[in-house]
Amino acid sequence: MNESHRIEELLLAALQGAEGPGHPPRLAAAVRHAVLPGGARVRPRLVLAVAAACGNDEPALAGAAAVAIELLHCASLVHDDLPCFDDAPLRRGLPSVHRAFGERLAVLAGDALIVRAFQVLAEVRCSRPTRVPPVLATVAAGVGMPGGICAGQAWECEPQVSLAQYQRAKTGALFGAATAAGAQAAGAEPAAWRAFGECLGEAYQVADDVRDVAADPSLLGKPIGRDLALGRPSVARRDGVAGAIDRFRELIAAASQAVPECRGADKLRALVRLESERLVPSALCAEWMASAA
Amino acid sequence: MNESHRIEELLLAALQGAEGPGHPPRLAAAVRHAVLPGGARVRPRLVLAVAAACGNDEPALAGAAAVAIELLHCASLVHDDLPCFDDAPLRRGLPSVHRAFGERLAVLAGDALIVRAFQVLAEVRCSRPTRVPPVLATVAAGVGMPGGICAGQAWECEPQVSLAQYQRAKTGALFGAATAAGAQAAGAEPAAWRAFGECLGEAYQVADDVRDVAADPSLLGKPIGRDLALGRPSVARRDGVAGAIDRFRELIAAASQAVPECRGADKLRALVRLESERLVPSALCAEWMASAA
Repeated sequence: MNESHRIEELLLAALQGAEGPGHPPRLAAAVRHAVLPGGARVRPRLVLAVAAACGNDEPALAGAAAVAIELLHCASLVHDDLPCFDDAPLRRGLPSVHRAFGERLAVLAGDALIVRAFQVLAEVRCSRPTRVPPVLATVAAGVGMPGGICAGQAWECEPQVSLAQYQRAKTGALFGAATAAGAQAAGAEPAAWRAFGECLGEAYQVADDVRDVAADPSLLGKPIGRDLALGRPSVARRDGVAGAIDRFRELIAAASQAVPECRGADKLRALVRLESERLVPSALCAEWMASAA
Repeated sequence: MNESHRIEELLLAALQGAEGPGHPPRLAAAVRHAVLPGGARVRPRLVLAVAAACGNDEPALAGAAAVAIELLHCASLVHDDLPCFDDAPLRRGLPSVHRAFGERLAVLAGDALIVRAFQVLAEVRCSRPTRVPPVLATVAAGVGMPGGICAGQAWECEPQVSLAQYQRAKTGALFGAATAAGAQAAGAEPAAWRAFGECLGEAYQVADDVRDVAADPSLLGKPIGRDLALGRPSVARRDGVAGAIDRFRELIAAASQAVPECRGADKLRALVRLESERLVPSALCAEWMASAA
């Protein structure tokens, strides 16, 4: 089974595990809507790629960490789309959860996904159970306070915000958690892996800024110009699209260099190149540069 | 230090741990507002009481479980108070989190509290780390799908709901998690303890229904008649206040009987009697019966 299939199967099993006897059916449907069909699943792929590069001697734990991080990412999208935040009508080309199920079920689906993420990790069966709490702590730090996704989103509610701090918390932290948790699941030291993930996360956020102003909306599955319209901090707004594209390329180069030495390093660097092209296609850059010239 | 002091100190430490360098200050303030000053802290007291009754050989783990459960309870109140649910202006006699900090920070404060709860458990230092994942799984099951608080609240969004199922998920599940986690933290089998907690939780929910229609609002710290006005399932609505008071007394008797045999059983039964009097004071019942006669 390839990695993409494995991730979808693990996610499905995690959702099925939440649908025990007597569950409220509309909440279950809202939770499924939030997770399936998915986006690029870049964070869980990253968990598994790092675990593989580190020897992956506890694949069930790496799988649980991958699932947990994707469920938390999905939860953050559901809450981020709520009327009090972005009031986004679409997500991944479909109605957002609150448009499809109402605001109350969107709040609860996000909550249930956060809980489910930690439950999947707590219930994992592996032969080295003492590895579970550190992986769980890493995942939690990527989403909570003081520097995880919740904090990142909360910077949108502060009168003063540094762009770097905002992006580090809103995107970088979960990427850093993905790479660190992948390493920890395989028994490796997480620090260097976290730095690699944070760098990649920053690149991803800059790519999002670029795509928000320069991409074809049919490719994104969500309206473009949203971040700008909402007055959100954005590299593309601060430095222009060309400046943002330059910054993206710098960050991708830095991420490649930050891959810790290991047997799978070359494979990981190739994955970074592929992601880079998927995120900000060379053709899109050329087109933008030509139109701006 | 008595138990109440210990719980407040543990909660404060958990909040301080979330306020690392570079946290968004308004989110931190909203999170504190959600937790401090607290209510009766009945759930964490229950965790510690059960752990004590079971020998309490890992007090740090019991403390972390108590904190996690109270943070999750506080998170559920913050989200339950949101405009799309109860739109409650007050909580514990103060403005609700969304009234004080806005809806966005209320959503995020709830999310951050859920994450923090699991982080506290994941980071606990104890000499038997293999006990941590089962305690964590128990706590997660009490709040998530298919039968925890999220599910309970989601029953309010379903066209058909059984009162028993609603109350079991909305209140009983977290009480059951509190007693089961207290037992597991101390190395005891959780099943019988969970049954005791669920019974107590059901009593607590019925007491809430009684208080919603019969209590003095200045004692509750929140408006009365809210559940009735919102058309929520309620024993007091179904059976009348006198019927609900009878049901409450039955459940308290059943909870006392359900205390598993252990050295601390008498102490626990005394705690149940005290709680019962605090929740539905005999004087209130007498007054209600007299006014209804």
